[in-house]
Amino acid sequence: MSLLVIGTLAYDSIETVHEHRANVLGGSAVHFGVSAANFGRVALVGVVGQDFRPEDLDFLEQRGIDTEGVERLDGRTFRWSGRYEADWNTRHTLETQLNVLARFDPKIPIAHQGSRYVFLANASPEAQLKALSQCEARVFALADTMNFWIESARDALHEVLGKVDGVVLNDEEARLLTGERSLIRAAHRVRELGPRYVVLKKGEHGAFLIGEDVQYALPAYPVEEVIDPTGAGDSFAGGFMGYIASADSIEPRTLRRAMLYGTATASYCVQGFGVEGLRPHSRGKIESRFNELLDITAV
Amino acid sequence: MSLLVIGTLAYDSIETVHEHRANVLGGSAVHFGVSAANFGRVALVGVVGQDFRPEDLDFLEQRGIDTEGVERLDGRTFRWSGRYEADWNTRHTLETQLNVLARFDPKIPIAHQGSRYVFLANASPEAQLKALSQCEARVFALADTMNFWIESARDALHEVLGKVDGVVLNDEEARLLTGERSLIRAAHRVRELGPRYVVLKKGEHGAFLIGEDVQYALPAYPVEEVIDPTGAGDSFAGGFMGYIASADSIEPRTLRRAMLYGTATASYCVQGFGVEGLRPHSRGKIESRFNELLDITAV
Repeated sequence: MSLLVIGTLAYDSIETVHEHRANVLGGSAVHFGVSAANFGRVALVGVVGQDFRPEDLDFLEQRGIDTEGVERLDGRTFRWSGRYEADWNTRHTLETQLNVLARFDPKIPIAHQGSRYVFLANASPEAQLKALSQCEARVFALADTMNFWIESARDALHEVLGKVDGVVLNDEEARLLTGERSLIRAAHRVRELGPRYVVLKKGEHGAFLIGEDVQYALPAYPVEEVIDPTGAGDSFAGGFMGYIASADSIEPRTLRRAMLYGTATASYCVQGFGVEGLRPHSRGKIESRFNELLDITAV
Repeated sequence: MSLLVIGTLAYDSIETVHEHRANVLGGSAVHFGVSAANFGRVALVGVVGQDFRPEDLDFLEQRGIDTEGVERLDGRTFRWSGRYEADWNTRHTLETQLNVLARFDPKIPIAHQGSRYVFLANASPEAQLKALSQCEARVFALADTMNFWIESARDALHEVLGKVDGVVLNDEEARLLTGERSLIRAAHRVRELGPRYVVLKKGEHGAFLIGEDVQYALPAYPVEEVIDPTGAGDSFAGGFMGYIASADSIEPRTLRRAMLYGTATASYCVQGFGVEGLRPHSRGKIESRFNELLDITAV
């Protein structure tokens, strides 16, 4: 398959009510890549510092991720630390160290400039635009963003939205971007900004897809015990785009199934720390949870 | 069909950010009855005061509700007033006047003691037990409750749960009843208390059904503009039980479809004040939204 992700590689320090772990492999492109790799080979573009552990690069390669586009710069790898409240819905960012990420200037390797499917993980809209301009052969580009960019770089973000085919937003981001309380109205407003498809992520409450030819809602997989929700959104996007790229189709039926694959993948993500929930993965495990979801949602 | 509801008839005063209405016809049995009546005849047992407006009784009769079991006592009808925050998820009870409801002693008319399907709307567990003891022919009894009874009458509520077939709870009630944060675990714990089926209502986030032979999740219908959420839960229960009673079956397939009918009915409820969203109803309108939901949730 022909799938490219541009985003962050990070070392995360995560506190939950049960546990505290420091310097766990994370980052949007990592969670996405590890998740999408269940469906086929993924190319990853991002930047790391001199401290990035060789075994982490090996892990990505062994998972079927092409890391040619991972640039190593002088300095330290991007670091994020955060704490979750007991209800999981409240996350406090304790510290963000951009480090080498401040100099991120995405360069897509020539071998991957022809990628048909592209995920612009959360990054500055400027970096997203630079990446996008190098992917002329794309069939379907999906972008993520966050409140910080909506508030601080709205014009550049609108430019991104005018150029991509789809966008993934959580409910808070959708409301902030549009000023609409109703999520449905917000989704329609986002579509007016450019993307033909809007994916709304509602965490434990599932996800919603709105496009000109499709409207699809599904609940989250009923996970009994959440260990760490970090990366769940990128993991969802990884399952979603991984399935689309492997099917090489953006028909409504494919998109609906992709939402289920995204949900199945994210459900594994939250069952472990960092990418641990995704580590022992295989397409077979994804299929079994996909089938469970089909059963749970079928009439 | 053979469906009986025992619950409240009320005059509600409701404040939303847009509007304020006083003495609107409401109450759990009213919202349930008006909703279930789309599927066939419903018998209603409850109590009103001398001030209950004849036109409201006429309205119920015209909707196909048998009001023989509505007892009129000296005093005033039960009154509730509340205010919703802009996000709809926060509701403040401003005042509760029990009035005649304090003397509610449900008496099921002989003609309805053989009802096969019974809904115990939110009421004191004592009243629910009295009602239940008069419904020996029941095939499927579903109970609702609220935080107040979970906290103040837990033993009697456990007795109710030991005798009914299903219970509807919102997420907060499920957590309070079981002490479990995880809704899935909470649902399993509730089943251990007796009911074979647990319906979890999550408002704008949909609903979830867990039973020994079925597990089904569905999102809410994407309503663009909420006018008043009062009664949405009872309206859901009305569509759910109305469909079950009309199908005269509790097979898993029926229960799954009933969840969709409950969701379709509740989506109309929130689009008007009090029962107004449900007033112009017909089975045809319910079917059209049922089909929309099928389309939105089908893979």
